[in-house]
Amino acid sequence: TKGFVTYPSTSQHKKRSFLVRAETVNPEIRKSEEKVVDSVVVTELSKNITPYCRCWRSGTFPMCDGSHVKHNKATGDNVGPLLLKKQ
Amino acid sequence: TKGFVTYPSTSQHKKRSFLVRAETVNPEIRKSEEKVVDSVVVTELSKNITPYCRCWRSGTFPMCDGSHVKHNKATGDNVGPLLLKKQ
Ligand code: FES
Ligand code: FES
Repeated sequence: TKGFVTYPSTSQHKKRSFLVRAETVNPEIRKSEEKVVDSVVVTELSKNITPYCRCWRSGTFPMCDGSHVKHNKATGDNVGPLLLKKQ
Repeated sequence: TKGFVTYPSTSQHKKRSFLVRAETVNPEIRKSEEKVVDSVVVTELSKNITPYCRCWRSGTFPMCDGSHVKHNKATGDNVGPLLLKKQ
């Protein structure tokens, strides 16, 4: 069944498995787009360092707004941004 | 319980909920690092377009190797790379 994975039951008394949706990385951003691709023309970067989001939780996507901190805390994940540096 | 979310049971016959790990974006890459941050010095880019991974499934992370296609197909997700362009 495409897009689903089986997990073992957590019950000690019954052996059963169940279906949950396989993990999507992006729960909310631009879901009407078939594939979310963004472009950065690097000569147009204004700041010396610009962080770009890789956690898909930013309110300023495709830029990083620090939301990866909350995501990591809530899930135990370890994701962070891609830093674009002019030098 | 931090890092866990409840899902309703899929069983029609019993009303039960169970715990699974809240969704991490990154299941495998550099999990020994507290936060995976990468830097690109944009003046050192060699190609006109360089795609950087945002799906956390690339075999050449932090670069994109096209693995987002398989991830999207398997999960119904819609993630894609960040394209760094020299002009
Ligand atoms: S907000 Fe997504 S990586 Fe920082
Ligand atoms: S392989 Fe991850 S975005 Fe392409």
